[in-house]
Amino acid sequence: MKKDKLIIVGSVGIDTIETPSERHESILGGSASYACAAASFFTDVGMVGVVGTDFPEAYRDVYRHFKIDVEGLQTAEGETFRWSGVYEDNMDHRRTLSTDLNIFASFAPELPASYQQSPYLFLANISPDLQLYVLDQMEELDFVVADTMDLWIDTARETLKQVIGRVDMLTLNESEAKHLTEKNSLIQAGQELLNQGPQYILIKKGEHGSLLLSQEGIFLIPAYPIEVVQDPTGAGDSYAGGLMGMIASEGNDHQTAIRRAILYGSVVASFGVEQFSLDALQQITLEDIQDRAKHFWRMIEIDD
Amino acid sequence: MKKDKLIIVGSVGIDTIETPSERHESILGGSASYACAAASFFTDVGMVGVVGTDFPEAYRDVYRHFKIDVEGLQTAEGETFRWSGVYEDNMDHRRTLSTDLNIFASFAPELPASYQQSPYLFLANISPDLQLYVLDQMEELDFVVADTMDLWIDTARETLKQVIGRVDMLTLNESEAKHLTEKNSLIQAGQELLNQGPQYILIKKGEHGSLLLSQEGIFLIPAYPIEVVQDPTGAGDSYAGGLMGMIASEGNDHQTAIRRAILYGSVVASFGVEQFSLDALQQITLEDIQDRAKHFWRMIEIDD
Repeated sequence: MKKDKLIIVGSVGIDTIETPSERHESILGGSASYACAAASFFTDVGMVGVVGTDFPEAYRDVYRHFKIDVEGLQTAEGETFRWSGVYEDNMDHRRTLSTDLNIFASFAPELPASYQQSPYLFLANISPDLQLYVLDQMEELDFVVADTMDLWIDTARETLKQVIGRVDMLTLNESEAKHLTEKNSLIQAGQELLNQGPQYILIKKGEHGSLLLSQEGIFLIPAYPIEVVQDPTGAGDSYAGGLMGMIASEGNDHQTAIRRAILYGSVVASFGVEQFSLDALQQITLEDIQDRAKHFWRMIEIDD
Repeated sequence: MKKDKLIIVGSVGIDTIETPSERHESILGGSASYACAAASFFTDVGMVGVVGTDFPEAYRDVYRHFKIDVEGLQTAEGETFRWSGVYEDNMDHRRTLSTDLNIFASFAPELPASYQQSPYLFLANISPDLQLYVLDQMEELDFVVADTMDLWIDTARETLKQVIGRVDMLTLNESEAKHLTEKNSLIQAGQELLNQGPQYILIKKGEHGSLLLSQEGIFLIPAYPIEVVQDPTGAGDSYAGGLMGMIASEGNDHQTAIRRAILYGSVVASFGVEQFSLDALQQITLEDIQDRAKHFWRMIEIDD
């Protein structure tokens, strides 16, 4: 098993989350937290992000649990990024209650020297400007995945296009793909994004699975069915983190490796949503993930 | 290849359909029309339904094209069932403009003697009373599938439960499954329906694919990706019809046969939505279906 370090850049946040049945205050969140934890089952992970001086030691312990290298995690004078949101209508709709960027507003991701020759990079959801700034610091990239969101499509479309032109895989959700390309057909949206440079476009549809487009064709995968979803926050980040962890561990030489990585990413995400924050991921091992992956594989194969 | 006749009972209608881009007036529709046409690629089909004296000869020609046995299609004095609806919001929402039951209001499905010993029966969406009335006329059933809809869940829940207790597979869509069981979790809804008797519960999620539950576990399949959907009317009926046609042709002895039947049903439905009414299905052959099924299979297998 290859063990090249995977670098993950994204947000670290303290979240307050309400669902129809529960409310959790000041829990560990952020795209980098979810993605690094998910990837850590498969490979060595280096985190790049920023926290404030208020960031609890207990949350650093969580990173230690996952053996995440936090040399690239800056601590800045001030408060950590905070987000609060509520899931409504049977969890189908998420509404943001407040976003306090705090020290994240002036974040400039500086990569430690020990990160810069890593071949694998996941640019979780941060501004395209910062994504480019990170890309410029990396020296020997082999496979880069970038995520994005509506905010950047609206406010930084041109910079986002530069990012898209420099990555191997773009991940985004269904509505973002349609929004970014101004197409109603998901297939057409994916094709158009494919023409902008990436080898792979991975369109996430949440509980409905996802769709991978490449020059070799389309791959479709449902989501692993979860009886009761407790907290979908970070599911997309765990998905991409798990996927990148598998790629860093198993390579990306052929379609089957990518498809297997996607299956494993889905499985890690499916554990993640069973509890709030990183609680579920802290309780599982690689073996649990492998067991569920085998089970999932049987659920989607025609030949049983 | 077995060629046991498949009996399909359902509605025959004349539809007027509007989409954001087109309007088609007085076109052939109804659950029995779609299901019989879809099944006819795989097996002999006997239709049970009713039309009025106004039913156009051209639409009987469509049935002839598919070699559908219409001995069980009654002609009653009066007008054929008519439905009109409009697809809004990028086809995501269907709104009924009018429903005129006409001669369908007093329909009693009488099965010709030649149908009664058929081993395969698909009870498309008609009232549970009529579904039971048909079940009582069949003599040697091997595999029965029933579809239903919200209307019957609201108005005939107890009779519907009797139907569910007597079929091998129940097909219904996601919201209907939740409505019928009063569960928010689709898995829990499916499990509860499984406890009511059927060997299989097939939950349809439209463009998001479907979910098969049985005692042997769960099978998940995405929908075949269509670039531009012209008219989703009848997609669920084509899906179930194709599936039942495959079962009548290939048997239902093992999970793989059921899974393959589901894959083929999805493929037939995917052709159906590419045009209005039965137009697309009239232009394809079994070979076209087989080609797309192979292509689809490659899209969902992990090992390429």
